Amino acid sequence: MAAPSSALLDQLATHLGPRGFTRDRDLIRPWLTDWRGTTHGEAAALLSPASREDVQYIVTQAAAHGAQLTMQGGNSGMVAGATPGPDGDGLILSLRRMTAIRAINVEAGLLVAEAGVILANAHDAAAAAGWRFPLTLGGKGSATIGGLVSTNAGGTQVLRHGTMRGLTLGLEVVLADGSILNALAPLAKDNRGPDPKQLFIGGEGAFGVITAATLKLVPAIVGRAVAWVTVDSPATALVLLRTLDGAIGAALEAFEILPELALAHVMAHNPAARRPVADTAPWHVLIEVVDSTDPDRAASRLTSALATALDRGLIGDAVIAATEAQAQAYWQLRDSISLAERAQGPAIQHDVSVPVADMPGFITAVDARIMATFPGATTLSFGHLGDGNVHCHVRPPGESDGAAWIAAYGSAASDIVYHCAMALGGSISAEHGIGRAKRALLGRVGDPARISILRAMKAALDPHAIFNPGVLIP
Amino acid sequence: MAAPSSALLDQLATHLGPRGFTRDRDLIRPWLTDWRGTTHGEAAALLSPASREDVQYIVTQAAAHGAQLTMQGGNSGMVAGATPGPDGDGLILSLRRMTAIRAINVEAGLLVAEAGVILANAHDAAAAAGWRFPLTLGGKGSATIGGLVSTNAGGTQVLRHGTMRGLTLGLEVVLADGSILNALAPLAKDNRGPDPKQLFIGGEGAFGVITAATLKLVPAIVGRAVAWVTVDSPATALVLLRTLDGAIGAALEAFEILPELALAHVMAHNPAARRPVADTAPWHVLIEVVDSTDPDRAASRLTSALATALDRGLIGDAVIAATEAQAQAYWQLRDSISLAERAQGPAIQHDVSVPVADMPGFITAVDARIMATFPGATTLSFGHLGDGNVHCHVRPPGESDGAAWIAAYGSAASDIVYHCAMALGGSISAEHGIGRAKRALLGRVGDPARISILRAMKAALDPHAIFNPGVLIP
Repeated sequence: MAAPSSALLDQLATHLGPRGFTRDRDLIRPWLTDWRGTTHGEAAALLSPASREDVQYIVTQAAAHGAQLTMQGGNSGMVAGATPGPDGDGLILSLRRMTAIRAINVEAGLLVAEAGVILANAHDAAAAAGWRFPLTLGGKGSATIGGLVSTNAGGTQVLRHGTMRGLTLGLEVVLADGSILNALAPLAKDNRGPDPKQLFIGGEGAFGVITAATLKLVPAIVGRAVAWVTVDSPATALVLLRTLDGAIGAALEAFEILPELALAHVMAHNPAARRPVADTAPWHVLIEVVDSTDPDRAASRLTSALATALDRGLIGDAVIAATEAQAQAYWQLRDSISLAERAQGPAIQHDVSVPVADMPGFITAVDARIMATFPGATTLSFGHLGDGNVHCHVRPPGESDGAAWIAAYGSAASDIVYHCAMALGGSISAEHGIGRAKRALLGRVGDPARISILRAMKAALDPHAIFNPGVLIP
Repeated sequence: MAAPSSALLDQLATHLGPRGFTRDRDLIRPWLTDWRGTTHGEAAALLSPASREDVQYIVTQAAAHGAQLTMQGGNSGMVAGATPGPDGDGLILSLRRMTAIRAINVEAGLLVAEAGVILANAHDAAAAAGWRFPLTLGGKGSATIGGLVSTNAGGTQVLRHGTMRGLTLGLEVVLADGSILNALAPLAKDNRGPDPKQLFIGGEGAFGVITAATLKLVPAIVGRAVAWVTVDSPATALVLLRTLDGAIGAALEAFEILPELALAHVMAHNPAARRPVADTAPWHVLIEVVDSTDPDRAASRLTSALATALDRGLIGDAVIAATEAQAQAYWQLRDSISLAERAQGPAIQHDVSVPVADMPGFITAVDARIMATFPGATTLSFGHLGDGNVHCHVRPPGESDGAAWIAAYGSAASDIVYHCAMALGGSISAEHGIGRAKRALLGRVGDPARISILRAMKAALDPHAIFNPGVLIP
């Protein structure tokens, strides 16, 4: 890559105006480092188009001048997928100014949002219309719709409502030749070949620039019930999940598991917190059931289903939050795991997925193989059992210098985790994506057929490689 | 295309054996004509691989020798997508011998079926395991899983369970270079870039050879309720749909509309049939509600929801089938429309979709524009309101020679229908696909951005154009 020509920069500055174009280092700097603070890049300019037509202009000019564009939304991704490369020759294309909610269909439960709409604002717009946009995650105050679609974001409500793939009913995309794919209309049936919007959902900006999306809304919640339950193993937790699924079905909104050690770490990290159940137990499960028509039904259905589970000997103890504050306290325990684990010292973190049915076996297999290969090292797995998504931490032996151990053995330990997942047909990235951070990993352990498809798609849709260089494609 | 060399044919004959290779005209002939009987092709040989490895061998040899393959399942498609070209130089690749059900996971509700498994057999296998595979359609006795995935088949249960896209949780595909994409594992979360299996769902065999699929099963039905209701217009029918959706939600399994004229034609065609309601009404709605836990709940919920709708003045008359035989009789009326319409004489048929919210406006607009452009011509629209999928027939003026009128004006009349759909972001093929039959149409009226994506994908995934020549890609 060569630096962008002054002719290109002048044209972009003129067309986009001062709000849409800057080379001011102070204005650009916040967008050069990823959210985790581990990857730093440089950029010749920050482009902030206000419209789809602006994006078309930028893409056309970039293609004509051989310049490269790094797409960016809220810059809150976990794998540096929105961070420009180190050479400083590329341009950041920020969608943050495209914040219009173009339409809300109150009857159909649809919301058409531009790429720069922040998730929390989409939540508010849906709520104001009497609906709910169910996908939510920690970065909801900064994550944008364009970024959420591009990373096929998940979060805690995937069990019932799916990832962004299931919630994205339509998409508008600027293609590499500057033309527009208008696939915003929400069609339940459309058999003009494969669904083109699927190329861009989870595409990490490597295949086109998403400028707007039609989102599916779901009925607002009028009642919810949250329970904390103990079980003897992940295998029993899976039987419990199937039991609740049969009894409660689509109303089951979350099913999270964590081992006793994770709860102990959370308690150590926050001594003011209270254990939901007094006795220790091998594993804990956090369950949420919701209802959109009756304020009390979620609690009565969950109570009845847990009574059945107790009768069958599936669970040790169970409490249902009596108040909304208590429900939030249960969730707070779950949401504190990452922080509490970090406070325990260095560990290698993995965000993997396997088929739900294989999750208990995966947790057991990883634990056994890590302990056998690295005596003294331990694993701690927790996460979204209902989605087959486990966050698996490998911790160095207690007596070791953690950082030095990770430097020496971390990669080999990670490969054990990834190979255990892939042996079950699982994924080395369940919800965080590939970005820059996992690109080399994908090249090393990824399925060759998938990688060849990724490369073929990239060559087909972005033949001059102007979109998101260095991201996703090994 | 040149005829396949005798060297290639000899190699295939040797490798595949007599059950897997034939040039016998009597054996090939049934597979040279499409299901509707309107498109005829020729083929140098019929290949019937018994395994994924056989398919890999065929694809590798075809690529090496520059031969072309026409993929075929049950040969029951509506657009000649599985019919070989007229030149006779290509080979038919039939998946009908790959009939293994590789696995059923009774706990998780999953079925892994090879491409040649016939839909009715998949239904039976699911039922034997205590589950249900919900997608069904008229050709279930011949349609295969591979063909259903390749055409993203719909049918009558899409409202609740979606098309094949939503029911296909995993896929195994032989790619053009002979390698295998193994994406059979059902992962709820997987963010290694875009979902590769989406390239082949609805891909009509143009991008790879589907050899197996992991299918989602749903709980078996223990109770169902079927109602026949009259309304004054499609707009009111849409309000009724929203009302039922709010009250019954996911249990609403079908919502079909038809005009009085369609019912009158059905009665004329089959004088033994009985009208569900005595009085005529502008429009009729067929509604089905199911339940998987309680045999009586579907009927009580539907009764209660219809009482609300009656109170609100949405419906004129309503009857709920008192027996299973009556329920089947209601469905029989709906399923007889195509036959009854054919008996009325020639008409131009269209299978289009629009956003559900736009369906009433579409029906009105098409009717008005056809009548204004062609005085005396009439339209008749019926179909899956809940899916935004309307089957729209245009009938020549009563006094005209129908066939001659269609020859003269049919194309112009069709363009009105298609442009009305596309103006709403709709599709010129809702559930039948493109195949050979609509390929020229797609080229003429299709969105250029979509067509360029289709062509780019084709060049990327099938660079030597060995898969399904003449199908889908304009």
